Amino acid sequence: MNRFEKLFEHLDTDCALITSDVNRRYFTGMKSSAGIVLVFPEKAYLLIDFRYIEKARATVKNAEVIELVNTGKQVHELISRHKAHTMAIESETMTVKTLNGYRRHFMKEVDIDDSDALSNAINRLRMIKDDEEIFCIRKAQEIAEKSLDELMPFIKVGKTEREIALELNRLMFQNGAEDLSFETIVLSGRNTSMPHGVPSDKKVQDGEFVLMDFGAVWNGYHSDMTRTICVGEPDEEMKKVYNIVLEAQLAGLENARAGITGKELDKISRDIIERAGYGDNFGHSLGHGVGLEIHEKPNASPNYNSVLEAGSVVTVEPGIYIEGKFGVRIEDFVILTENGCDNLTKYAKNIISL
Amino acid sequence: MNRFEKLFEHLDTDCALITSDVNRRYFTGMKSSAGIVLVFPEKAYLLIDFRYIEKARATVKNAEVIELVNTGKQVHELISRHKAHTMAIESETMTVKTLNGYRRHFMKEVDIDDSDALSNAINRLRMIKDDEEIFCIRKAQEIAEKSLDELMPFIKVGKTEREIALELNRLMFQNGAEDLSFETIVLSGRNTSMPHGVPSDKKVQDGEFVLMDFGAVWNGYHSDMTRTICVGEPDEEMKKVYNIVLEAQLAGLENARAGITGKELDKISRDIIERAGYGDNFGHSLGHGVGLEIHEKPNASPNYNSVLEAGSVVTVEPGIYIEGKFGVRIEDFVILTENGCDNLTKYAKNIISL
Repeated sequence: MNRFEKLFEHLDTDCALITSDVNRRYFTGMKSSAGIVLVFPEKAYLLIDFRYIEKARATVKNAEVIELVNTGKQVHELISRHKAHTMAIESETMTVKTLNGYRRHFMKEVDIDDSDALSNAINRLRMIKDDEEIFCIRKAQEIAEKSLDELMPFIKVGKTEREIALELNRLMFQNGAEDLSFETIVLSGRNTSMPHGVPSDKKVQDGEFVLMDFGAVWNGYHSDMTRTICVGEPDEEMKKVYNIVLEAQLAGLENARAGITGKELDKISRDIIERAGYGDNFGHSLGHGVGLEIHEKPNASPNYNSVLEAGSVVTVEPGIYIEGKFGVRIEDFVILTENGCDNLTKYAKNIISL
Repeated sequence: MNRFEKLFEHLDTDCALITSDVNRRYFTGMKSSAGIVLVFPEKAYLLIDFRYIEKARATVKNAEVIELVNTGKQVHELISRHKAHTMAIESETMTVKTLNGYRRHFMKEVDIDDSDALSNAINRLRMIKDDEEIFCIRKAQEIAEKSLDELMPFIKVGKTEREIALELNRLMFQNGAEDLSFETIVLSGRNTSMPHGVPSDKKVQDGEFVLMDFGAVWNGYHSDMTRTICVGEPDEEMKKVYNIVLEAQLAGLENARAGITGKELDKISRDIIERAGYGDNFGHSLGHGVGLEIHEKPNASPNYNSVLEAGSVVTVEPGIYIEGKFGVRIEDFVILTENGCDNLTKYAKNIISL
């Protein structure tokens, strides 16, 4: 069953209109900044403009490729041909303006279902990765780890956070990244206590933590990892906190498997941090899904009550942030299996002193 | 009059809900990835979560800053306090799902106007840049030009398009860019005939054009420029085509001023290319607005019939693309004045042979 066929297992409209870049890519395998996928239970179409038509005809196999000239007219023609009366749209990404345009245009032909049914159905499909997707995610992670390895000699007392981030970015591109997964985070010393800090011109000093959260994109798929290392010798409190975070992270990895809920997994790591007295210093959730987007389903968080499924990819990233002092976060990401998980992150995480 | 006050000159609802990152930044001056601006004719509020609250309180002067805890409850409270019965939303950026959520939540309190009124009003305001905005755009352009200058010795026979693009990106970040305006385009030889090409591993050869389209972001504001240079000696056809594009570009710059329509300006450059026999080889429009986004209003295109206004920033970027051979594009961007324009791009554009 291809992805289009699977989609209609979760959908009860006569057709579905897929217009977001990321989902169009998911279904057709082709990257583009415009185009429309129109799917009926019996057949799928990709309407795409002259800029992409040649590539689409050469690469897209599971949909009929049509040159997009006049959206209204062409979509109308397909709707009539397939006698569709209801159409689902992607409520999570379609703008109000676009919906209003479609409604005006197709008022007589179809009822547009503006519920979350289509977005939910696609999110469900995308949550479970197939072998090809896992291959891409592994490649992205290999690029990230190779780059971190090569970055290590560059990290020294006197380098700024920004310089280190730029060098890491340069290495990722050099090693084959098509993009960064997100704006690379490099923080040092006191700045590491900000979970969402931005690299500054602050220089790394002796005995400080350097926290790096980053990822590469390969063929559309993202990686995500965090390492916290020490330049020079960490003091006792730094060592203690690092080891609590590491213990929490290892417990998360140990328990990550299909069948556990996101909430339960989060709680396993969170309990360790709470018992150590740092419950108030872990202000974010344990993890999130990763794939064509850097944040996708499922979540490992206190309010995610659904069961995690085999084939989903989730991060395990506990942290402790002590304002005015320092912060530690350690992040791997894993693919869940029936009996456990396969850690996609191979990089060392014993406390590294440079 | 501040920006909030100006907004209600173009709006007839009791309040406006601004939720897009870029427009929230435009009105409050603060960058964030979440938050809500709720504006009444008499007062504006910024609701923003704990991650940003400290910075918001320190920097946002034209709105009351409130810590966002419960969107539904807090927006409801403000709506009642100000006795609002109608609310405008940003139709161009709000998703269908978000609108449905607001509708369910505020069904009894307010009618939500889902027309394009608010998006249009904001686009109008953003189109006319004030001195502070122009300052940022100039800085962004200075970074881009300094980087291109420093890149020149790097461009040599044997370098790949990708290597040149990466080096240009590195230089822009080193020179102070906070981001790239868009994915840098570097193309060479035959690849230059693709207006939207992506840098490949093709090596630059002697006698080939190298086309570079790129920009830097500074304090949220974008720059945009294109230069086509020759590595070695261009042949006669390359020289001829380059000079036609240059003539078309100079004519565009000569005629860019407040009061001309986007269509008229486009036609002035297009006519020159058509008369030279290359009308079919200029498949895009002459230009677009630039500011907090890389593409914004106004346009200089065949179907933009509105008059361009003083204070708007537009690109002038004609091109000729000959499939299988080469392409040339030359792009500056200007700020329009009553009597002409101020070219923000200072970089040379006589055909450069390296």
